Amino acid sequence: MKSQIRKSESEQKVVLVIHGGAGAIKKENMTDAVEVAYHNKLKEALQVGYDVLINKGSSTDAVQATIIVMEDSPLFNAGKGSVFTNSGTIEMDASIMDGETLNAGAIASVTTIKNPITAAREVMDHSKHVMLVGNGADEFAKMRNLALASPSYFFTQRKFDAMKRIQWENDTQLDHSSEDDAGNRKMGTVGAVAIDSKGNISAGTSTGGMTNKRFGRAGDTPIIGSGTYANNKTCGVSATGHGEHFIRNVVCYDISAQMEYGNKSFYDASNNIINNKLKKCGGDGGVIGLDAEGNVSMPFNTTGMYRGFITEQGEIETFIYKE
Amino acid sequence: MKSQIRKSESEQKVVLVIHGGAGAIKKENMTDAVEVAYHNKLKEALQVGYDVLINKGSSTDAVQATIIVMEDSPLFNAGKGSVFTNSGTIEMDASIMDGETLNAGAIASVTTIKNPITAAREVMDHSKHVMLVGNGADEFAKMRNLALASPSYFFTQRKFDAMKRIQWENDTQLDHSSEDDAGNRKMGTVGAVAIDSKGNISAGTSTGGMTNKRFGRAGDTPIIGSGTYANNKTCGVSATGHGEHFIRNVVCYDISAQMEYGNKSFYDASNNIINNKLKKCGGDGGVIGLDAEGNVSMPFNTTGMYRGFITEQGEIETFIYKE
Repeated sequence: MKSQIRKSESEQKVVLVIHGGAGAIKKENMTDAVEVAYHNKLKEALQVGYDVLINKGSSTDAVQATIIVMEDSPLFNAGKGSVFTNSGTIEMDASIMDGETLNAGAIASVTTIKNPITAAREVMDHSKHVMLVGNGADEFAKMRNLALASPSYFFTQRKFDAMKRIQWENDTQLDHSSEDDAGNRKMGTVGAVAIDSKGNISAGTSTGGMTNKRFGRAGDTPIIGSGTYANNKTCGVSATGHGEHFIRNVVCYDISAQMEYGNKSFYDASNNIINNKLKKCGGDGGVIGLDAEGNVSMPFNTTGMYRGFITEQGEIETFIYKE
Repeated sequence: MKSQIRKSESEQKVVLVIHGGAGAIKKENMTDAVEVAYHNKLKEALQVGYDVLINKGSSTDAVQATIIVMEDSPLFNAGKGSVFTNSGTIEMDASIMDGETLNAGAIASVTTIKNPITAAREVMDHSKHVMLVGNGADEFAKMRNLALASPSYFFTQRKFDAMKRIQWENDTQLDHSSEDDAGNRKMGTVGAVAIDSKGNISAGTSTGGMTNKRFGRAGDTPIIGSGTYANNKTCGVSATGHGEHFIRNVVCYDISAQMEYGNKSFYDASNNIINNKLKKCGGDGGVIGLDAEGNVSMPFNTTGMYRGFITEQGEIETFIYKE
């Protein structure tokens, strides 16, 4: 597997890299049909973002368009596929960051928004704030005329049963570590990072959080620096995994800081935190992203991470397991 | 002013440093009586934390006890002194981090909790999570039997009038930049950082946010890495200021990363982000903190910051303006 793409030195080549969650994803629990469904949806999401980039669109537009495809799919734990809380509701988080301006937008614990990444974008572009939480964020989305969705839009019997089973076991569970009845629906947080033809980097992340979560728990996804970070000077990163560990280790900004202050490459910096720091403290998960030259890295310390990238030439590669 | 204290090399000396918000705090708008009130409250808070530390208590206990004193005072924009939202309610944020374990707790947009820093501590110690937001966080506090407070506890006519005046001006306002009728009540976020006799560093921050804020806006205070960070290897930091800029620049973790990856001193790293990076992008505010040797730094780029520290010997110094 090529985890690094070296671009030519001439002009900025566009690149887009995505993830659909990391976790205990094992080939023996998968069917061919499910594998194909994931590969196809990752490719569709990459193609949508690529079309934005190749037509001179911004990296922020590409990231948003790509994540919307994944939010609209029941395959991932974000948007439509968001898992149920302890109360049988859904609570979604998302964030987006523009590496040119360092502007950012985030929403946490929203319940009525069809595409949380679009709400995060609206916060970035149409408010003076970075982060809106709870009912206030839903209210903001409504005021901005964003598409809302009813509880039935988010309902599936499988997700509801998973929540009930975990309640019976009296525990919460990370979406991507769920071993549900089918044994083959490893769902996860989604994220995208792009560099556009002007060399601007953007990153975004969206999630439905943990099955059976309570008390308005937010993970790293809505936290700028932990779940999402972008800076044209260094890199763009989107994380997925055990959010609490990702917050404590400020994972995405740590990678940027290793590059800025420690002269590490993006590949070395991202591998260092995922396979060294986080692994030592039990922080399961991974990141995807790219640096200012379009070099891609996608390290993870779990058995699998849905992921892929598309290059300037439109070459798509998607992966599920370690290779 | 001594902004650096060098400890002897023998054994760990305890040190505690605090802030009560940075902003447009000007001597010409102050009365002697108000100045004295602030100095006295800062000294009281420092003394309470020092008593914990000198009796071999943990830095986390000291930080919590210190912040509670400031939350219980109407002088600061946290706890009792929290400013009003657009709806005439209060929404408070707080976070705390233990530099030995990197454990952390945070709550955002809570409305019923008397001491938000205690709720953040409970999240750290008695949940598997780092961050709880909105109604869920209030629910958690209630379940943990934390002291709650009714809206009347938080009400003052002065704060209510400030909110109404800003509504009339159709704007939101940072607490610490408020020029209210009295012209001399510059209130702000509160924070504390301590190192205990075992050499463990902890940091905490608590705020009522922006007067007239809407949509569940959260600033940097509940964001680990932006508003609060602690790591025995490097430093402990608590921030106060224009929260959006502090989030985008991941201010507190940036200081730690400059030290870890760039070999900067705590003094240089903290001054670099406050007086260089943040100043360039209009990010008003400051930080307080200390490094693993107990060296204190308290940089700010506004006209004033309520701040002070207490040393092993019990020597207290408190400040308001640039000196």
